Amino acid sequence: MGRTARRRGGGRAGNAARRATASIDQMPWRIPVNIDRPTEPLDEEGVAAIHNGAMTILEDIGIEFLNEEALELFKEAGCTVNGTNVRMGRDWVMEMIGHAPSQFDITPRNPDRKITFGGNHILFGNVSSPPNYFDLEIGKKVPGTRAQCANLLRLTQHFNCIHFAGGYPVEPVDVHASVRHLDVVYDKMVLTDKVAHAYSLGKERVEDVMEMVRIAGGMTDEEFESNPHMYTNINSTSPLKHDVPMIDGCLRLARRGQAVVVTPFTLAGAMAPVTMSGAVTLSIAEGLSAIALFQYVNPGTPCVIGTFTSNVDMKSGAPAFGTPEYMRATQMTGQMARHYGLPMRASGVCAANVPDGQAMWETSNSLWSAVQAGTNMVYHAAGWLEGGLIASPEKFVMDCEVLQMIQRYMEPVITETGPEEIALDAIKEVGSNGHYFGIEHTQQRYEKAFYQPFVSDWRNFEAWEVVGGIWTAQRAHQTFKDIINTFEEPAMDEGIKEELQAFVAKRKEEGGAPTDF
Amino acid sequence: MGRTARRRGGGRAGNAARRATASIDQMPWRIPVNIDRPTEPLDEEGVAAIHNGAMTILEDIGIEFLNEEALELFKEAGCTVNGTNVRMGRDWVMEMIGHAPSQFDITPRNPDRKITFGGNHILFGNVSSPPNYFDLEIGKKVPGTRAQCANLLRLTQHFNCIHFAGGYPVEPVDVHASVRHLDVVYDKMVLTDKVAHAYSLGKERVEDVMEMVRIAGGMTDEEFESNPHMYTNINSTSPLKHDVPMIDGCLRLARRGQAVVVTPFTLAGAMAPVTMSGAVTLSIAEGLSAIALFQYVNPGTPCVIGTFTSNVDMKSGAPAFGTPEYMRATQMTGQMARHYGLPMRASGVCAANVPDGQAMWETSNSLWSAVQAGTNMVYHAAGWLEGGLIASPEKFVMDCEVLQMIQRYMEPVITETGPEEIALDAIKEVGSNGHYFGIEHTQQRYEKAFYQPFVSDWRNFEAWEVVGGIWTAQRAHQTFKDIINTFEEPAMDEGIKEELQAFVAKRKEEGGAPTDF
Repeated sequence: MGRTARRRGGGRAGNAARRATASIDQMPWRIPVNIDRPTEPLDEEGVAAIHNGAMTILEDIGIEFLNEEALELFKEAGCTVNGTNVRMGRDWVMEMIGHAPSQFDITPRNPDRKITFGGNHILFGNVSSPPNYFDLEIGKKVPGTRAQCANLLRLTQHFNCIHFAGGYPVEPVDVHASVRHLDVVYDKMVLTDKVAHAYSLGKERVEDVMEMVRIAGGMTDEEFESNPHMYTNINSTSPLKHDVPMIDGCLRLARRGQAVVVTPFTLAGAMAPVTMSGAVTLSIAEGLSAIALFQYVNPGTPCVIGTFTSNVDMKSGAPAFGTPEYMRATQMTGQMARHYGLPMRASGVCAANVPDGQAMWETSNSLWSAVQAGTNMVYHAAGWLEGGLIASPEKFVMDCEVLQMIQRYMEPVITETGPEEIALDAIKEVGSNGHYFGIEHTQQRYEKAFYQPFVSDWRNFEAWEVVGGIWTAQRAHQTFKDIINTFEEPAMDEGIKEELQAFVAKRKEEGGAPTDF
Repeated sequence: MGRTARRRGGGRAGNAARRATASIDQMPWRIPVNIDRPTEPLDEEGVAAIHNGAMTILEDIGIEFLNEEALELFKEAGCTVNGTNVRMGRDWVMEMIGHAPSQFDITPRNPDRKITFGGNHILFGNVSSPPNYFDLEIGKKVPGTRAQCANLLRLTQHFNCIHFAGGYPVEPVDVHASVRHLDVVYDKMVLTDKVAHAYSLGKERVEDVMEMVRIAGGMTDEEFESNPHMYTNINSTSPLKHDVPMIDGCLRLARRGQAVVVTPFTLAGAMAPVTMSGAVTLSIAEGLSAIALFQYVNPGTPCVIGTFTSNVDMKSGAPAFGTPEYMRATQMTGQMARHYGLPMRASGVCAANVPDGQAMWETSNSLWSAVQAGTNMVYHAAGWLEGGLIASPEKFVMDCEVLQMIQRYMEPVITETGPEEIALDAIKEVGSNGHYFGIEHTQQRYEKAFYQPFVSDWRNFEAWEVVGGIWTAQRAHQTFKDIINTFEEPAMDEGIKEELQAFVAKRKEEGGAPTDF
């Protein structure tokens, strides 16, 4: 591994970020702090019931770990290992979970993009991992390409309300699987300067991505390991199973001080009980079992517990998203995450196939439930369609309008009640026959008083019709094009870029990564 | 006025309601109880600041009442009346407000449709008063007609998640203003059996509507006056003014024991301060001044305090709806309504011109903020577009999907955590290799486990494409047509229908109502 430590041009990156966003009016980069008291559907007994259920699963039923190294570690820790089944006492689990920080930072190659996980912070990331792509120009669902993936990475970089770059925003199936991670992570490193993610899909990929993040940040190995610079996200194979590569990837990151998100995917009625609290209990047990392991291996490893509990449509078996049951499961998981003192991940999701009304009510339901749950990290917050099978740039743009509104909603200035805000002098001045527009109280504040949209059209019908009568998805398509056409890469030292290119070339020459996963 | 007291056929109405809803799967009629703790952006000091601001406005600045009768009543009550300006002491205001019930029922002609205002109940009503109509078949914005109005009333009756029939769902400008109320209220009485509304647009209209509600319910005058059977909703003329007919209508209803909703329309930056807490303060002062009057006239009059505080786009002056500022103003007003012990009204609103993505994120924002605010009565909950200038049947259908999800979200069964819900036996039974679909725990519950949509399409892209690849608004159009084509009127005694017809004929012969308002 290289040992060079180059410093990225902070000022230049800042300038580039400002230039890149000049074409579309948007809110500034900032980490929203959730000022609302969470919505808590469970009483204390309910929290205790889910906790006891999860602990009983871990103690009496056990979780399957297919990863040999994990089994050895659990044995060493004194857990009961029978074949691949691991049972662990609640005292040990709670002791391990107690090592996990309730809050931590991740610093990407541009330190101005450092983000905080935990506390009352809420962070948004792009859609991750759809195999397919849909936009209004193509007009149909197509397998993803590297070019589409790169454009979605440009959107990820462009929008200040997107705080981290998750998995591939679309799976570029035109790049061979053995070298796909090299090309996409190169694109991600060059096109974005935000916190990045590595898929836990085998040793080679994970090591390659850690190395590329290290190179992109101009860090030595010691600097890389000194604090979190990236993360991985894994799903359990519900019910009650963790597979080989996901645990392997997490162990590699945990040992180098990087962050790990564990997100069971428990669809009630399919791979989890039909009852939502049962599905949440299963999810919590699966999540804690892995987090306990990572804390055993490296106490203090930054971990996030994720929720992906929804339900299937019992008529068709299709997964449903953004439903009332999904919202409540997210809120319940929020209560459990606080019970364990762990930062929490949720998602922005929908079942809709196109960026229409259904897409937005389902996505609004999921995003607002994330807010209500006290979620710290919102995956798939922009661009997701068809239950995660499609990435859409129009949906990405539309979701960012909702995310910006959530960001603005969190600003305490809206609900300030000092004498200047109650505004009795202004009310007296205007009286019962005037208008507030022209008065000084308004003039001093009007530029920053209200949320300004970038894709919503607030004109009346006639004015909207004169400019074409364009529906939201079509407007979003134009915004997408405008962003791509004016996009400027964030600054990167030429030497670093060459080092990344050399690394990619060398690894391709070596054949990339195995594809037998 | 007639003195006949005929009883409506309860059983027949029930059957008709069931038949009418057979074509479209929907949730049963029920009054949702909001089980969530409200979201409260204000601390105690903030509530006190808005209260003190509102009281100071009432004591020192005063409210203009253009209605002569109101001025006389305020004088009689000991308030300070200078011309049309009325100032009132906070002790008197709070004493009067103290007479208002914190909860009350309204019983329409079908007593099974009785609804409760206040407490944790949340009720939804149709869009009210747009002058224009848009549907996908017409494809443009057109002035409303009686036929369109009747179809929207059919939707109002069809959907169990719509609890009351608000104002005209579209203004039928093809009917002369002098007799419009007679025709539309006749349609409303015949096509719906839900709680109805009277516009406070002059003595004749108000008296006519009260009489028609009395006739439709087969009530004597005494029976009509014995408890609330209808309501009116008025807006103040912000800033700081109540006009003649609105107060007149309310006084007429209050004196006959009917319900009154007072909803100031305070757009921050236009007719209210640019600061949201200032706009809420103004709104509270305007609302309380009228409610205090009605309590003075008839202590115990059922009153609801409404909020319609949003903001204008400071670039264009256009009103914005469903914004972060709108959401916070609604939540702040919820805190104030609880402070005064008054039931609260909010709305389901958007600025969008067509039933697309923007329409649904703005409407979702407004509906969820109503939930978060602890709102009891949600006006315009279905069918609103273009800031209230357009009624849309597609939007009506789409909104009802969101309303049903809110209704389902409120069902405590989703978050139950008894042993049967935590489901450890099922989790043990399925283990790590099975599937939950076939097991008894699932089979016992699957039919009622999850929300079932009626216009959302949860099929995957390919299955959705095979049936036409239809976007949500177009699907909603088809649902609208299906409902209209299979609609059956709720049962009404033939004698009552004839009496209503005779009343309308007589009043038309007399020339209807003056149109010089």
